[in-house]
Amino acid sequence: MSNTTSVAVIGLGIMGAPMAANLVQSGYQVTGYNRSQDAIDKLVAAGGKGATSVADAVRDADVIITMVPDSPDVAALARGEGDEAGLIASAKAGATWIDCSTIRPDIAREVAAEAAAAGLKALDAPVSGGEAGAVEGTLSIMVGGDAGDLEAIRPILETVGKTVVHVGPSGSGQTVKAANQLIVAGTIELVAEALVFLEAYDVDTTAAVEVLAGGLAGNRILDRKAASMIKREFQPGFRIDLHHKDMGIVLDSARAAGVAIPLGAQTAQLVQDLRNLGHGGLDHSALLLLVEQLSGRSTKNEGEAK
Amino acid sequence: MSNTTSVAVIGLGIMGAPMAANLVQSGYQVTGYNRSQDAIDKLVAAGGKGATSVADAVRDADVIITMVPDSPDVAALARGEGDEAGLIASAKAGATWIDCSTIRPDIAREVAAEAAAAGLKALDAPVSGGEAGAVEGTLSIMVGGDAGDLEAIRPILETVGKTVVHVGPSGSGQTVKAANQLIVAGTIELVAEALVFLEAYDVDTTAAVEVLAGGLAGNRILDRKAASMIKREFQPGFRIDLHHKDMGIVLDSARAAGVAIPLGAQTAQLVQDLRNLGHGGLDHSALLLLVEQLSGRSTKNEGEAK
Amino acid sequence: MSNTTSVAVIGLGIMGAPMAANLVQSGYQVTGYNRSQDAIDKLVAAGGKGATSVADAVRDADVIITMVPDSPDVAALARGEGDEAGLIASAKAGATWIDCSTIRPDIAREVAAEAAAAGLKALDAPVSGGEAGAVEGTLSIMVGGDAGDLEAIRPILETVGKTVVHVGPSGSGQTVKAANQLIVAGTIELVAEALVFLEAYDVDTTAAVEVLAGGLAGNRILDRKAASMIKREFQPGFRIDLHHKDMGIVLDSARAAGVAIPLGAQTAQLVQDLRNLGHGGLDHSALLLLVEQLSGRSTKNEGEAK
Amino acid sequence: MSNTTSVAVIGLGIMGAPMAANLVQSGYQVTGYNRSQDAIDKLVAAGGKGATSVADAVRDADVIITMVPDSPDVAALARGEGDEAGLIASAKAGATWIDCSTIRPDIAREVAAEAAAAGLKALDAPVSGGEAGAVEGTLSIMVGGDAGDLEAIRPILETVGKTVVHVGPSGSGQTVKAANQLIVAGTIELVAEALVFLEAYDVDTTAAVEVLAGGLAGNRILDRKAASMIKREFQPGFRIDLHHKDMGIVLDSARAAGVAIPLGAQTAQLVQDLRNLGHGGLDHSALLLLVEQLSGRSTKNEGEAK
Repeated sequence: MSNTTSVAVIGLGIMGAPMAANLVQSGYQVTGYNRSQDAIDKLVAAGGKGATSVADAVRDADVIITMVPDSPDVAALARGEGDEAGLIASAKAGATWIDCSTIRPDIAREVAAEAAAAGLKALDAPVSGGEAGAVEGTLSIMVGGDAGDLEAIRPILETVGKTVVHVGPSGSGQTVKAANQLIVAGTIELVAEALVFLEAYDVDTTAAVEVLAGGLAGNRILDRKAASMIKREFQPGFRIDLHHKDMGIVLDSARAAGVAIPLGAQTAQLVQDLRNLGHGGLDHSALLLLVEQLSGRSTKNEGEAK
Repeated sequence: MSNTTSVAVIGLGIMGAPMAANLVQSGYQVTGYNRSQDAIDKLVAAGGKGATSVADAVRDADVIITMVPDSPDVAALARGEGDEAGLIASAKAGATWIDCSTIRPDIAREVAAEAAAAGLKALDAPVSGGEAGAVEGTLSIMVGGDAGDLEAIRPILETVGKTVVHVGPSGSGQTVKAANQLIVAGTIELVAEALVFLEAYDVDTTAAVEVLAGGLAGNRILDRKAASMIKREFQPGFRIDLHHKDMGIVLDSARAAGVAIPLGAQTAQLVQDLRNLGHGGLDHSALLLLVEQLSGRSTKNEGEAK
Repeated sequence: MSNTTSVAVIGLGIMGAPMAANLVQSGYQVTGYNRSQDAIDKLVAAGGKGATSVADAVRDADVIITMVPDSPDVAALARGEGDEAGLIASAKAGATWIDCSTIRPDIAREVAAEAAAAGLKALDAPVSGGEAGAVEGTLSIMVGGDAGDLEAIRPILETVGKTVVHVGPSGSGQTVKAANQLIVAGTIELVAEALVFLEAYDVDTTAAVEVLAGGLAGNRILDRKAASMIKREFQPGFRIDLHHKDMGIVLDSARAAGVAIPLGAQTAQLVQDLRNLGHGGLDHSALLLLVEQLSGRSTKNEGEAK
Repeated sequence: MSNTTSVAVIGLGIMGAPMAANLVQSGYQVTGYNRSQDAIDKLVAAGGKGATSVADAVRDADVIITMVPDSPDVAALARGEGDEAGLIASAKAGATWIDCSTIRPDIAREVAAEAAAAGLKALDAPVSGGEAGAVEGTLSIMVGGDAGDLEAIRPILETVGKTVVHVGPSGSGQTVKAANQLIVAGTIELVAEALVFLEAYDVDTTAAVEVLAGGLAGNRILDRKAASMIKREFQPGFRIDLHHKDMGIVLDSARAAGVAIPLGAQTAQLVQDLRNLGHGGLDHSALLLLVEQLSGRSTKNEGEAK
């Protein structure tokens, strides 16, 4: 795909900004837009162009990437709000819109259908890998929509991510992202329960994590987060507030499909509990704090935090 | 450690038999005992010696390895029952007793203390890695007891296992094994919920597993079992009946220590549910069958099983 | 309140029809409207008047009672849809609109505010007591909105119900109804778990229910439903499909307010499970079937059903 | 039954003392024994006789009532411990032993069988109704064992209780008591979730409780405890510590029988959580404190506690 391809990036936050920067680095003509001007200024300083509105940003773009917080943001962006024109009405026919936000699968399908009706190619492409993955361009990207539309722009997604997988029709990317968030939160909780259980029996948790990680219990949370959980270090990372929002998507989507998620539903309650205890700003691995508090070990652990 | 070391192995079942065979292979003088004579005959055919009773097996052993099903079996073995003398009364002073069974940590501590009072060195050393790991000598072994006692016989455990980790005082090996079983069963359930959820939305589950396994949701169940779960292949592997027994240890140990295990407790219920549905003989990954049945998708899935 | 008061009743189903009939009986001038003509004909035969549309029904009404299935029905009724005018636009200023449907509290507040802006007095007044209560005029009615507005029309609600309680501002009636449905489903599940537990130990469940009902465990489910549960008689009554809809309101409302409902959330899963097993048309007391199936006792119980 | 019947009462605590006093009042010859002398002195002052040991108390008794805290206490009492003779060895042949303690059904069956082998008639007869019921002689008593044995001593149980029901063979009384504790704890939790939910929506909870109590959601907790829960008054009553012990019996008995108790198991976790938060000495209705803390409303509620 020619680097003369012009790419619009809307939403230049923690994730969107480094994704746009990586596209500039790779020689794409990148036009960015964000509610706050300073984010736009940073992109311009990095070699991109700034836009004055969504319409201005997408007007001439071959490819449009959006990365905003939640379902209503994507809907407003797509359809416009107030006197501000929307992405769908403003983009040129034949352009490809890639929404990298994490939103409800049903909303993703709706706006994609509206975009298709307006002559756009729409893909839902939520990412995992966090800020680090966005900066390093090593995100995992789960893509829903037409496989051919993905192949046509694959080089662009491979500029911002390492693993780019087509998982099914429109909305499927969001569905897989929801499944991802269900497994991640549940695994953190399982590891938290195991660690507090081991501490209660005065086991050497670091040695235990080594042997647990080597067997069938092995998982990415044990590899990447257990050590900081043992030290009670919970700076984000991925905030509980955001995982709470994502668990809402899991709950609604599973219920709409009549799928039984007993552990998922209980995990959503625990994430909400932790948030209600005032820890919404901590990393999701802070579920350990809830487990140890409900185990009557909080004070002790604060004391012994290693 | 000299290969003239004599090792007794009691319990020559699916796990114990290959462990004994590997010790013979490495040149140790191995004496085996099992309730059924044929298991003893196999060991003799492989170059070991057969014993006529627990007492006969352990009398001259420097190291005693036991591998039996459950807590009562270990207690009976250690203390003797009826007119049959027990391991503790029969072993020579200074011998090391390594119990590789998966049992209750409190029972492990009790019998180890009784063994110590009788002049034995006792270690609890449950294993993970299954029959394959036992045959290949690649088991992960979590060891509780005196660190020096472990170092003195480490070569023997490294003959049957690959990862041998000291995790704490007497009973700690069993505690870590319980934590292992909690995480494994919970992770299987999370993956099962995610797969049924993805199937309900007609997502390409194989592609989805690829991308899920690459991110923070990655775990050993996705790596080793998701493919067979998608195909609805549930031959053991590790049987639900055994995982049900192990979840009983998790429940009792967590409750005794007052540790909150909300997901662990619910997972134990689900494992019991699956067993009650008549699937106790299937691999633990069959938790998927329960999820899809409670999601009203059983018939459909049988039909579409790929 | 003068019996010359004219009352419109919209939604002449299982609940609405007998409520309208009781109002006619008490001498009110009742005009009814329903999507299906036959329901209107029945009301006319009973001494009421029939209307040709929502607008026609409410035009001259002093009091408007609506009883429809779900939140979207109430919203459509209030705001109109397609070329059909809505209740709010069609009712005369100063009229009182009493919505007896069971819907989301937030939707109830929204439409009530829109009605107020149009000069109407709006009350949310969901009922409990079922078809029998509607026929006998013994419903319990939980009312949200202005207390004065309730007092002004209290005689009308006391014509269709026995207990009429003002529980708070607009939406509060629906909130209390949601709490009611949470407690009812949870209590049925608790009683089901207790009964299967007692059967598993061959206890005389009828004698047990007598003593349980007499103590702190006593509840309306033991009084009214335990006997039929023991006999495995599950004809509705209140259908699982409807309780599933109501648990969705409970889940959404609790989550919106950040309230922890661990048992409520799990009960909602169990109600969905039972529905997925094909029992959505049975009485909600059929949660017993799920408990006994997950306890491996289904066949046995079918055999022994007394 | 002649009032010349001699009755031994062992365990003169909060429950046993008033039960013994009521028997004295009714003219029975009551001999009491308790570990602490002052409890014996109080009974003597009330017109009973004091014993110097279990053996001394039961030697001449026609009927023996035991009321002690837990399973191990009953086992020790029945079998004796150290050089102290047990009840079974000391009672006269043909005497009836009524154990009113709340213990494990399996232990109840064991000791009853041992008693029968020694020529005693044994009944398990746990009670509900609390200290007030014991003082007023209005306890509900659920009796397991031989129906004829119960009828022979029914007048004695009707002296201490109002409802005396035979629920099945030996152990059945304890099984029903376990079911009772499951329903009671679960119902308290459901009411707590409902109340916090209603408070979050600024509903008039007192009015709401009135209407909830009048419908299918009605239960003894709403009748007797909701008012104090709304006021945040949690003086026992029945302590969380004791209900935690009883939930252990529920968990073990349900698991032993393979019965699914999803709500029961989660309720047991919540009772343990509340205990771990330091509230083990409060009334079990204090489950509300856990719900409001996990809902992020603790401070607010302390502030507004009425």
